[in-house]
Amino acid sequence: MPKLTPQTQDFPAWYQEVVDMAGMAEHSQVKGCMVIKPYGYALWEQIQKELDRRIKDAGVQNAYFPLFIPESLLNREKDHVEGFAPECAVITHGGGKKLAEPLVVRPTSETIMYDTFSRWVQSYRDLPLLINQWANVVRWEMRTRPFLRTTEFLWQEGHTAHATRDEAATEADRALNMYKDFEHDWLALPVLSGRKSPKETFAGADYTLTTEALARDGKAIQAATSHLLGQTFAKAFGIQFQDEKSEMQYAWQTSWGMSTRIIGTIIVCHGDDHGLRLPPRVAPIQVVILPIGRDTEWARVLARAEELAGLLKAVGVRVQVDKRDHLSPGFKFNEWEVKGVPVRVEIGPRDLEANQAVVLRRDTLEKMTLSFDDLVERIPALLEEIQESLLKEAETYLKDHMSEADAKEELIERLETLGGFVRVPWAGEEGDEKRLQEETKATLRVVDERPLEKEMPCVLTGKMTKQAVWVARAY
Amino acid sequence: MPKLTPQTQDFPAWYQEVVDMAGMAEHSQVKGCMVIKPYGYALWEQIQKELDRRIKDAGVQNAYFPLFIPESLLNREKDHVEGFAPECAVITHGGGKKLAEPLVVRPTSETIMYDTFSRWVQSYRDLPLLINQWANVVRWEMRTRPFLRTTEFLWQEGHTAHATRDEAATEADRALNMYKDFEHDWLALPVLSGRKSPKETFAGADYTLTTEALARDGKAIQAATSHLLGQTFAKAFGIQFQDEKSEMQYAWQTSWGMSTRIIGTIIVCHGDDHGLRLPPRVAPIQVVILPIGRDTEWARVLARAEELAGLLKAVGVRVQVDKRDHLSPGFKFNEWEVKGVPVRVEIGPRDLEANQAVVLRRDTLEKMTLSFDDLVERIPALLEEIQESLLKEAETYLKDHMSEADAKEELIERLETLGGFVRVPWAGEEGDEKRLQEETKATLRVVDERPLEKEMPCVLTGKMTKQAVWVARAY
Repeated sequence: MPKLTPQTQDFPAWYQEVVDMAGMAEHSQVKGCMVIKPYGYALWEQIQKELDRRIKDAGVQNAYFPLFIPESLLNREKDHVEGFAPECAVITHGGGKKLAEPLVVRPTSETIMYDTFSRWVQSYRDLPLLINQWANVVRWEMRTRPFLRTTEFLWQEGHTAHATRDEAATEADRALNMYKDFEHDWLALPVLSGRKSPKETFAGADYTLTTEALARDGKAIQAATSHLLGQTFAKAFGIQFQDEKSEMQYAWQTSWGMSTRIIGTIIVCHGDDHGLRLPPRVAPIQVVILPIGRDTEWARVLARAEELAGLLKAVGVRVQVDKRDHLSPGFKFNEWEVKGVPVRVEIGPRDLEANQAVVLRRDTLEKMTLSFDDLVERIPALLEEIQESLLKEAETYLKDHMSEADAKEELIERLETLGGFVRVPWAGEEGDEKRLQEETKATLRVVDERPLEKEMPCVLTGKMTKQAVWVARAY
Repeated sequence: MPKLTPQTQDFPAWYQEVVDMAGMAEHSQVKGCMVIKPYGYALWEQIQKELDRRIKDAGVQNAYFPLFIPESLLNREKDHVEGFAPECAVITHGGGKKLAEPLVVRPTSETIMYDTFSRWVQSYRDLPLLINQWANVVRWEMRTRPFLRTTEFLWQEGHTAHATRDEAATEADRALNMYKDFEHDWLALPVLSGRKSPKETFAGADYTLTTEALARDGKAIQAATSHLLGQTFAKAFGIQFQDEKSEMQYAWQTSWGMSTRIIGTIIVCHGDDHGLRLPPRVAPIQVVILPIGRDTEWARVLARAEELAGLLKAVGVRVQVDKRDHLSPGFKFNEWEVKGVPVRVEIGPRDLEANQAVVLRRDTLEKMTLSFDDLVERIPALLEEIQESLLKEAETYLKDHMSEADAKEELIERLETLGGFVRVPWAGEEGDEKRLQEETKATLRVVDERPLEKEMPCVLTGKMTKQAVWVARAY
């Protein structure tokens, strides 16, 4: 197995090699669409399982809406269609005939869902309406990279309707916090979170909330978003209800989503020069056991490996025995390191005699020799330690890559040398954001909740302001 | 809530009313595409969960392949494209531009997957390759009915490659038996199973195996299929491997699938004049608890209902308390009956005093008064009894609707009066199948494994044969 390009030498090359060599995904015959391979899909299933649990715990119900959206429906909300029309895939023929009206493959489901919501919502008793969908969506992209940006991707999209703006805003916050907690607790990803700037706001929303993680090349990456849609769509689609005083009101709405992009986020935030490092709580395989021995020894070490696997399974560990006897141990070590399996256990003939096993933790590559009898107790604890340690490391990295700048030159200098998030005074408009991007190759990631202590000149326009924003180069 | 049309009066009307009133699905703005509502989707999730477990237990791995198939790829296998091209939805524009090559929305994934398989399979060590995908697929349909036939539907499709024909045939059998067991054990659906006739064989397959259930209007309904693809696709897509003697061989393949149609199957096979009857093992809600009381009583009966719900949840029962206090008990009784929830528990003020509850089993509509203290033990047992009883009832119904006929007139008479499956001698070719359908409105459902005891004249052609087939009018 060839060696990976070091991250510091060429991060994009490292990324592509890891995705390939770890067996996460590969390109398909369809431009911009990837094949998610079993190992990558198993990671998605782990993510789905836990996120779906959290979604359901919040009282949200899953449902499924059509893949296709009639063009007239997409056109119903002006800002929304302007945002998405350039990215749409269009069906013009079906069943051998030209369609009377072209259909768009959903780039997101606000329009097709809200047409239905307008029939589901009649009375205040029908609110809140809390719906989630797990689905594939399509956005035509020119430059794609597996997981990070693909024409087709998988996601969940939550869509809710409420009686008041306050309730909707609370729901948008709840969704944001759900993502933030999930990223923190399960993916070991600390994030910056808060409101997006006007230019980065979802097409048709009042405001967009985001969680932004930091990749190990110093670039920001959006990990999930939650939108307060206000009444924009409710008015476009006629989602009205009779309130307790029998008066007709438009509903207040939110939508929120996390996609397979989160897999790319995990890779760029936790990976190292040896490959992936998966947080144990979402790792499809938490422990891999490698029997090591030739000929007559093989059966004995394999039996011991199977015995350990059985014991670990019984305490809820996701474990796999690597039974392939035609590959060298060195090849297999390398492969499981690239795949980022948190713990590797090696059992050779001498280990059998000494009633021990060699255990390697993937995060630090630290090796230890443990008594066989301790493994069933030690390994689950070790998995928790690795989870904790990956989080700590990411937290330190994030903290070390947050800085401040007062002037544009200083901002550029920070972005060039340190990378990460730079806090700057900002009083610009949407047009200024575009100019900032042209001049710094960076974008506004999050508006800081904390205002500046005193008025400062905007880093771009010089206008005095107390508002601070976090700027970063981003995926 | 209006009363349902009786099944015997107008079965299709009954079906549509049940789907509507039970909140399973509804029509969308897109012709032929349905919205799967939360209750219908929750049933699909229960089906997915158990079937996915069985698929994984067989060593099959989930993965995800692109939604789009380049036309040239679909065209690679002649029989296959002839079978599917007339049903395809075609993308001609993407990202605002006309595409150089049109893309087809997958009607099934053989072609897009096997192009990739040709790279994954190199050596006999790569076999068997066992892949499954949960996905949406699109087949342009002229006449659609929710779940039973929709333009877009959800399914799982298993795709495997093997070193020998025997291994592939064994896998096709395994998949068939997995479906059969799942239908029997989980869905309480007895089926006829076996090989399809040539006309009903999957486009490109050597043969197709099927499980066929029987709806309560006497019509057959295909519940799942498993195909031995032979080497047809391997040759079209170049899936070759080096065998142990270093010689190049084409792989042998299978594919197998079950779709959201199974939800329609559950409805038409178990439903009665009061609505759905869901088998407890897949029912999203197994027990609904209705507190019944006014004003001051409400809080007390509600508290008792919540107490019982907590106890039942703790023993793994999927339970819901109906807290809506603005609807009459009669309305709610009706609604939960239409929704087919296996067990309903009513708790009124008098039940509180008597430390009891009224329990209704949905399958027989039998009511019983039970001591509150017995409920936690009694209800899980009752759910098993209902599961068993629905299966028995369906088995009896199937047995009572299997008959034999020697001549075409007799066959038609059986179909008209009794319905169900009729066993007939058959020596026809593919063209004869079409003629049989025109003359009897029925199709060959399954070739009987048991040959006739002695040669008999074919029911259509008069040719002597020992082959028997099961004929039925079908969905």
